[in-house]
Amino acid sequence: MIIIMRIDVTPDEIANVTKRIEHYGARVHPIQGSERVVLGIVGDVRKVNQDEFMLMPCVDRILPVTRPYKRASREFSAQNTVVPMDGIKFGTDEIVIIAGPCSVESRVQMLEIAHAVQEAGATVLRGGAFKPRTSPYAFQGMGEQGLEILAEAREATGLGIVTEVISPEQVDLISKYTDMFQIGARNMQNYPLLHKVGEYQMPVLLKRGLSASIDEFLLAAEYILSHDNSRVVLCERGIRTFETATRNTTDINAVPVLKERTHLPVILDPSHSTGHWQYVNAIARAAIAAGADGLMVEVHNKPEEALSDGGQSLKPERFAEMVAQVRAIADAVGRTISTKTIHN
Amino acid sequence: MIIIMRIDVTPDEIANVTKRIEHYGARVHPIQGSERVVLGIVGDVRKVNQDEFMLMPCVDRILPVTRPYKRASREFSAQNTVVPMDGIKFGTDEIVIIAGPCSVESRVQMLEIAHAVQEAGATVLRGGAFKPRTSPYAFQGMGEQGLEILAEAREATGLGIVTEVISPEQVDLISKYTDMFQIGARNMQNYPLLHKVGEYQMPVLLKRGLSASIDEFLLAAEYILSHDNSRVVLCERGIRTFETATRNTTDINAVPVLKERTHLPVILDPSHSTGHWQYVNAIARAAIAAGADGLMVEVHNKPEEALSDGGQSLKPERFAEMVAQVRAIADAVGRTISTKTIHN
Amino acid sequence: MIIIMRIDVTPDEIANVTKRIEHYGARVHPIQGSERVVLGIVGDVRKVNQDEFMLMPCVDRILPVTRPYKRASREFSAQNTVVPMDGIKFGTDEIVIIAGPCSVESRVQMLEIAHAVQEAGATVLRGGAFKPRTSPYAFQGMGEQGLEILAEAREATGLGIVTEVISPEQVDLISKYTDMFQIGARNMQNYPLLHKVGEYQMPVLLKRGLSASIDEFLLAAEYILSHDNSRVVLCERGIRTFETATRNTTDINAVPVLKERTHLPVILDPSHSTGHWQYVNAIARAAIAAGADGLMVEVHNKPEEALSDGGQSLKPERFAEMVAQVRAIADAVGRTISTKTIHN
Amino acid sequence: MIIIMRIDVTPDEIANVTKRIEHYGARVHPIQGSERVVLGIVGDVRKVNQDEFMLMPCVDRILPVTRPYKRASREFSAQNTVVPMDGIKFGTDEIVIIAGPCSVESRVQMLEIAHAVQEAGATVLRGGAFKPRTSPYAFQGMGEQGLEILAEAREATGLGIVTEVISPEQVDLISKYTDMFQIGARNMQNYPLLHKVGEYQMPVLLKRGLSASIDEFLLAAEYILSHDNSRVVLCERGIRTFETATRNTTDINAVPVLKERTHLPVILDPSHSTGHWQYVNAIARAAIAAGADGLMVEVHNKPEEALSDGGQSLKPERFAEMVAQVRAIADAVGRTISTKTIHN
Repeated sequence: MIIIMRIDVTPDEIANVTKRIEHYGARVHPIQGSERVVLGIVGDVRKVNQDEFMLMPCVDRILPVTRPYKRASREFSAQNTVVPMDGIKFGTDEIVIIAGPCSVESRVQMLEIAHAVQEAGATVLRGGAFKPRTSPYAFQGMGEQGLEILAEAREATGLGIVTEVISPEQVDLISKYTDMFQIGARNMQNYPLLHKVGEYQMPVLLKRGLSASIDEFLLAAEYILSHDNSRVVLCERGIRTFETATRNTTDINAVPVLKERTHLPVILDPSHSTGHWQYVNAIARAAIAAGADGLMVEVHNKPEEALSDGGQSLKPERFAEMVAQVRAIADAVGRTISTKTIHN
Repeated sequence: MIIIMRIDVTPDEIANVTKRIEHYGARVHPIQGSERVVLGIVGDVRKVNQDEFMLMPCVDRILPVTRPYKRASREFSAQNTVVPMDGIKFGTDEIVIIAGPCSVESRVQMLEIAHAVQEAGATVLRGGAFKPRTSPYAFQGMGEQGLEILAEAREATGLGIVTEVISPEQVDLISKYTDMFQIGARNMQNYPLLHKVGEYQMPVLLKRGLSASIDEFLLAAEYILSHDNSRVVLCERGIRTFETATRNTTDINAVPVLKERTHLPVILDPSHSTGHWQYVNAIARAAIAAGADGLMVEVHNKPEEALSDGGQSLKPERFAEMVAQVRAIADAVGRTISTKTIHN
Repeated sequence: MIIIMRIDVTPDEIANVTKRIEHYGARVHPIQGSERVVLGIVGDVRKVNQDEFMLMPCVDRILPVTRPYKRASREFSAQNTVVPMDGIKFGTDEIVIIAGPCSVESRVQMLEIAHAVQEAGATVLRGGAFKPRTSPYAFQGMGEQGLEILAEAREATGLGIVTEVISPEQVDLISKYTDMFQIGARNMQNYPLLHKVGEYQMPVLLKRGLSASIDEFLLAAEYILSHDNSRVVLCERGIRTFETATRNTTDINAVPVLKERTHLPVILDPSHSTGHWQYVNAIARAAIAAGADGLMVEVHNKPEEALSDGGQSLKPERFAEMVAQVRAIADAVGRTISTKTIHN
Repeated sequence: MIIIMRIDVTPDEIANVTKRIEHYGARVHPIQGSERVVLGIVGDVRKVNQDEFMLMPCVDRILPVTRPYKRASREFSAQNTVVPMDGIKFGTDEIVIIAGPCSVESRVQMLEIAHAVQEAGATVLRGGAFKPRTSPYAFQGMGEQGLEILAEAREATGLGIVTEVISPEQVDLISKYTDMFQIGARNMQNYPLLHKVGEYQMPVLLKRGLSASIDEFLLAAEYILSHDNSRVVLCERGIRTFETATRNTTDINAVPVLKERTHLPVILDPSHSTGHWQYVNAIARAAIAAGADGLMVEVHNKPEEALSDGGQSLKPERFAEMVAQVRAIADAVGRTISTKTIHN
């Protein structure tokens, strides 16, 4: 921690800051610059209450030195973490493709889509049974019946299952059906929910909040990791900016930045990060070219009849094209598309 | 709903769109412009699945006509809604001032602050017992013990109490202690929580999400209203922008925009919307000048020892100055500061 | 300047950084923390090329200590700068109100508006003769003829004149007609233009760029100040954010932040910062409540026929109401509305 | 143009709007919806002054149908425009790589870098002689001497030259030395400059403003096109968002969106769009994977001694790696890297 003092600071004020810092068990290294005095604070800085110093009139600014997350940081583990999900592995040279509809709508729909995405190259099936919707008048999901349909689709295909949890009290129920919890963007800072999924030894797909900084995203992961569930896969899904041509702005920079700052696997969701099916293939290719470990894509057999997110869903044929294009890009960066399923 | 067709649309494509619209029970009014055909869709448009049309290659764009919220809209009620909380009323000419610490930290702290803010002019006391914190290593609140302290402070002072709920399963417990639920910015789209508080006849202070548009904010209110709890007070608390000089950017425009679009009371939280105590008084004055119905301000007797948000908390003396300044502004816009308490 | 080293830094790497810093004539104060080494750099840090160190693999981050502007900073002058413009003064207890149309459209229009805004309480008249327009097909201004009309309006009313300069080669011509140059938001970082107006002893109204940080805004002012023209008035006019309910987001926080960081006068333009005439009065009141030294407001006698920005222009009667409301707020914060004109 | 009326509109008000629309020579098609009346306006809508209607109390909102640019639009030309620059062509299957330092610093530096980037695979050389710098105290460029050095580097290598113009009065001078004008992000809305370069039959590299929407970007291109200079190459270079981990946020979505909306070539600058050399290669690969027609990359032989932007510059060896990686991606999407130079 660095404390930058105001230009007109007095020796008494510096002495007072020093005394308070020492009160917390840390030590002060003063540096006299040409214009200002700067205090370097060393020792166990996490115990120091920054606010106390921010409030002192003699203090101009405080600069943190240590990043606020530990277990999620690259410095905690130089080696990439591999998140296993039965036969499937996130975070290796094999790119994992997750596909499926926004919502589970019916048994027939789900089985048809499951077979279609499997044939095209996906190894994990997505589908929401409990849906967070912006409007209270929109379809809110099929609930437990949707979970049963997902489980049936898994039986029929061998695809792994990921489905969203939106409330702590559902976690136990959902854990009986799914292979991976999904925490949606709106819940990235729903701390009771993060605590809860941290208590299971089940993989968690954590989506970035739509206005979360990369460091806040890693702090959300830290919540889960701090409960000793280290099976976290990060998912960039677009951030909110001033641009309205697309639903969100894909933060493609986040891929190499996350790869530098954390050891956790990083995937990208081009359906939400663009919001228009026309742009999904281009951004899926870009994600893999930039170094992402996987993709999560909305696919629907009849997007024009989807109960949610139809406008950003690919039809199975176009999804198959996407997989072919992504395979070529994966090859260009020395990687392959994972073909394992959970029954392998 | 307006559907703008692509320039090269064919009569067959228009016929097909028309057939599909009629399938939903709505009707099409085609308009032939100099460059394009535009279709006006009338009838019960809420039943039409927009996505189906977004996916058609002959469609360029779709423009909504109806706003997505009903009960929250100004058109639902030309008259301002008054939210009563025992003797206190939000949404009248009397400005309500809520003040108190970020977190309940101890009985002594809370009682001391309660008396101080009451003396300075507040009529509602804030204080968090369950805290959503960005870091899992930060203080997470005192829990039920904190609620008991809040209730004691109410007894001692007659101040109304508002405290945050962060999970649906707490709502019942918290309802036994508080006079008003607070939904924090991070939970503005926590739908299970919104549903839950909608089931109580207790006022809800709903804070705007840090990247929520004004219409999304009103849709969140709609969730609560749709459960027949109409006691919603909206709170602007700053949005996330590129500017880093302040913690958030106070969206002061939101005050007159909300006043135009909704009948619900609107207050502003200058502590979070700036993040620095130095700027709180200026923005508190601005809020009232712009037409806000109240303020929510962080006050701490010893901000330098606060367990959270100390840097944006006012000391009681400075808060008293703020109230005096705000009173002068209220007077200038023909309003007064509410002096009622719940035991009045 | 503070250099934060990577965790795995070696003594040789620290020695190398030290040697390079000393090469620039500065000195290194190393601080050994519990996790990392941090280097405090002192001496004439402006000569050190930061990039050299950012590129070193052993360096994690570099934190600046000194703000990048000097003459614009509060530390350069504890006293507020007063910018005189003949009889009118920006930066005193008297609030200056600038009003007028977006563009000069005709002699009759301009004289009518000039008299109307004067009567309502403005002391400076705005009007663009050279217009920067987003579309090449929009009205681009009357040019020199517009300047002549402005000069005539000044003669007729005694109002001071402010008009926009958009290109360095116009500055000399415009200086013959105007009392104050306006640099628009799109040109805040047009450095040849900033250099040019810096060479005149004429007041400059500098508008904040729509995505400029407060520190970049002050650096733009520094360009003008560095040429010894210290007559700079800063104008907050809204920033670009994700919110689309208003044309821009008024950064009301910028008022107290600028008042803290600089000695220059600060005014606010509620017409551009909202983009809708309905919200202008509320935001004008808020600006003065927050501490602004003046306002710049678009007023048009027939906004429905304006060649530009009609939708955010006030009619004279509504502007007169605004001045009355602002006067009440000014009174509440211990200030008055300036009534001087340039012929006083 | 669509005018959405307020719910409480009267027949007289509709009649009045109709009369005013007809006054402009356009026609009204009223549509009676279940809640509201919507007016479709057809005919020559560009002559209608929208503001007039925005100001009417009976009008709720106005929605544009026609995009504001014509010549830049995809509908103006279904075929991609190819921008020739002597032997080099932008907008074909061949990807053009522009590389070089931020600023021309010396003859030796420039020649060394020119040879290095040519050897690695670039065909166009960048280098600024007139620099727009955020701080007035930073290096402002070598001026005409820098242009002479660029011309010499072209002679020596056959590389095409692109250099920035920052003021209309320089355009003529710079046209004598360069093969392509660069308009920087800060000048994207410097209209006198856009007008000026529109008068030359020389290619223009137009960079997106850091908070310009895609439609505003295309409107800026329209300024140049409207002067009959159709040789415009668009360059995405990152936008400003709340994320601070990178200098800007690469808007990778802009690549497919621009490809859909315009026929002009689109390139991407990963140096500015990330601001850190570590991320440049990943984003360069992503750009080509997403469909960009070229890249503009900062390369410096001694970035640690660069007078500007050193921290985001690649060393020649790393740039050579980047070209090899980009070549593999180009191959995966069925394209090649252009090898032509202007002397071919």
